[in-house]
Amino acid sequence: MNALGSNVPLKVDRAQLQKDFDALAALTEPGKPWTRRSFTPMFLRGRDYLARRFTEEGLTAHIDAAGNLVGRWAGRNPEAPVLMTGSHSDTVPSGGRFDGIAGILSGLAAIRAMRLTGFQPEHSIDLVDFLAEEPSEWGLSCIGSRGMVGALSADHFAMIGPDSERLDTAITRMGGSPENIAKSIRSDVGAFVEIHIEQGPVLEAEDIPLGIVSGIAGIARVRLRLEGEAGHAGTVPMSMRADAGMAMARLMLALRDAARAEADRGRGHFTATIGVMKLEPNGANVVPGAAEAVVDIRAENDAAMEDYLATIATLVKAAATAEGCRVAATERLSRTFAVACDARLQALIRDAAEIHGFATRPLASGAGHDAAFIARIAPAAMIFVPSKSGISHAPEEWTDTEAIARAADVLALTLSTLDQRPLAPAA
Amino acid sequence: MNALGSNVPLKVDRAQLQKDFDALAALTEPGKPWTRRSFTPMFLRGRDYLARRFTEEGLTAHIDAAGNLVGRWAGRNPEAPVLMTGSHSDTVPSGGRFDGIAGILSGLAAIRAMRLTGFQPEHSIDLVDFLAEEPSEWGLSCIGSRGMVGALSADHFAMIGPDSERLDTAITRMGGSPENIAKSIRSDVGAFVEIHIEQGPVLEAEDIPLGIVSGIAGIARVRLRLEGEAGHAGTVPMSMRADAGMAMARLMLALRDAARAEADRGRGHFTATIGVMKLEPNGANVVPGAAEAVVDIRAENDAAMEDYLATIATLVKAAATAEGCRVAATERLSRTFAVACDARLQALIRDAAEIHGFATRPLASGAGHDAAFIARIAPAAMIFVPSKSGISHAPEEWTDTEAIARAADVLALTLSTLDQRPLAPAA
Repeated sequence: MNALGSNVPLKVDRAQLQKDFDALAALTEPGKPWTRRSFTPMFLRGRDYLARRFTEEGLTAHIDAAGNLVGRWAGRNPEAPVLMTGSHSDTVPSGGRFDGIAGILSGLAAIRAMRLTGFQPEHSIDLVDFLAEEPSEWGLSCIGSRGMVGALSADHFAMIGPDSERLDTAITRMGGSPENIAKSIRSDVGAFVEIHIEQGPVLEAEDIPLGIVSGIAGIARVRLRLEGEAGHAGTVPMSMRADAGMAMARLMLALRDAARAEADRGRGHFTATIGVMKLEPNGANVVPGAAEAVVDIRAENDAAMEDYLATIATLVKAAATAEGCRVAATERLSRTFAVACDARLQALIRDAAEIHGFATRPLASGAGHDAAFIARIAPAAMIFVPSKSGISHAPEEWTDTEAIARAADVLALTLSTLDQRPLAPAA
Repeated sequence: MNALGSNVPLKVDRAQLQKDFDALAALTEPGKPWTRRSFTPMFLRGRDYLARRFTEEGLTAHIDAAGNLVGRWAGRNPEAPVLMTGSHSDTVPSGGRFDGIAGILSGLAAIRAMRLTGFQPEHSIDLVDFLAEEPSEWGLSCIGSRGMVGALSADHFAMIGPDSERLDTAITRMGGSPENIAKSIRSDVGAFVEIHIEQGPVLEAEDIPLGIVSGIAGIARVRLRLEGEAGHAGTVPMSMRADAGMAMARLMLALRDAARAEADRGRGHFTATIGVMKLEPNGANVVPGAAEAVVDIRAENDAAMEDYLATIATLVKAAATAEGCRVAATERLSRTFAVACDARLQALIRDAAEIHGFATRPLASGAGHDAAFIARIAPAAMIFVPSKSGISHAPEEWTDTEAIARAADVLALTLSTLDQRPLAPAA
């Protein structure tokens, strides 16, 4: 017998879920599928749809101080810790139909399913559309979840976006009240579960419908600049060159090999990527005098990240020296720490999936998520659903509705279980 | 006793040479040292100065059909083959004070020195400022020397430059008559000698004042495109990547290693350079899905070029395969053949330098020059002077006036020798 008092595990309404996906997919900038950029009129149209649907499903919708759209299913005990789920409805430019919105619509589907059984939660359940999870034109991501946990500073508020608009002004325009953010930090959340597409190839490759996220990787970005001697491609003999492009090519391979070795070491998810590289002056008839790259490093284990960051310095020097070049910059652009998902929540989700007969596997998130910020104020966990070919942030992004519905099935069971047997408060 | 009838080898006028360099350096686009782009008003101001100086030194100046400025010192025998020298007065944007103009001013200095002795040549001597040697806004280089040898086609004439101007219209604007180019192909040239800065580091490194050019390298350009699978930098595990950037890094090193091996093989000057490379989509958080590069290959030996071009195909496939990527393009963008400098002229120059007490070394030209085109109609040779740090096409380009004057000393002796003992006509 499951927590909802039935032997048949509750299934969410697939047809309604599909309807909601179709409706949101239709709300995209003309000729630019799929684009609902935060802070734009199209984003607000998406939110209008969501607020209406929240209300239809019996939730009370409001915009919080940080500009998040929150739908509340009020519990019988207003003093009990809130159970929270949700994700984000904004997209990258020309992005997909699932990244973010899957977490809101599956939360809505889970709540609908629970309500249709006549279930009345003891705890209030909040379904949240976090503001601006994707990198915004203000140069910041996860604005709403940062705001909810008190991670927005005066410097953030002063960031400037399109039309010279300050970020706090933009949040106000979304219905938030930045002046109240500091005093609105949530301390009433008992647990948070976010459903999200994997954005990677693992679940599809292993044919497993659900990933239970073990942790969200810390992310570091390091800018590397190597300098050699620019020269005429035809006149500088091969033996007299200090070709910064060759030093960078060596470095790229060395960085990758070191990342592979770390990933194989068993200290959790680890990646390092050189996605940005440029030669200078970038002329066909000029031996490159300089080369720049940015290394993006993701580590589930902070010690692994530290080790790798230390290794970079060694590898950069070795590559430069081997090609007669010099290291002009090794600059740490940014660094966030890894966030472990709550082990009790992971176990609850695994149990719920098992009742439904869905296979799961633990999986780290290499991408950042609102859950990483919410984890600062509450036990947090995530459920991943497969991404076709691992593609995200592109029109080709795809996840079957059935795959998302299964995660929603598990979410409904997890929330109802938590409602009856809440996690013990943190010591 | 030298050809001018004296035991003291003739020295050109250093002070006048310096004056001419200073005057030309002053004729540059304001705030953009040193820029005298072909077909611009500033270029014409440079030519006005040159035409005036040609006349002052007793030459008759005119613009030929291809838009070249030609100064003629008429010989006693109008039927005798013409001895020709010169180079170009146009520059790249923000280029140097020596590339090209050194060949004109040293030619002028040599003629001045010969005239001041009272020497009267048997053969007419032409001093030429070839039109638009540097790549022009019309997308073509060596326009004047091409025109002089009949290497301008109707397709070339139809090329479009700034303000939608056709190339033939622009040549007319420079004083040329494109309609007469075809019937003006020079068949009266007995020998051509061009003085030019080395644009490379060899003479400076070996402390040798003069390079006698053995040949002008053939040039090929090949575009390479590798494709893998773009993916999220955080979510695609290291073991599941097809990173086109890594395939390109491998390829860059393999191409370079193969070029080094060829350069060491003793088949003459050989270089291969990857000066242009880009990753796609070039985002810090995206595993590159594609990478493109252009390889610039220069070979004094055409067989070495062919061997290398064949090797590229093998190396591209190997690099792609090693990284799970595929070869999307191996496209030959252009190909010119090597031009050997005339062996008799090289020997004459070497002898003249020896009389002056200047050390020389044979040296290939990895850069293209007007001489490569003139070689189609006459025995041609080049004398290189050292480039400080091998730099050219940049404001830092530098060669001492004394170094150029020495080349002019050798040129004067070479021309007077040729006047008395012309090369035998080609069989």
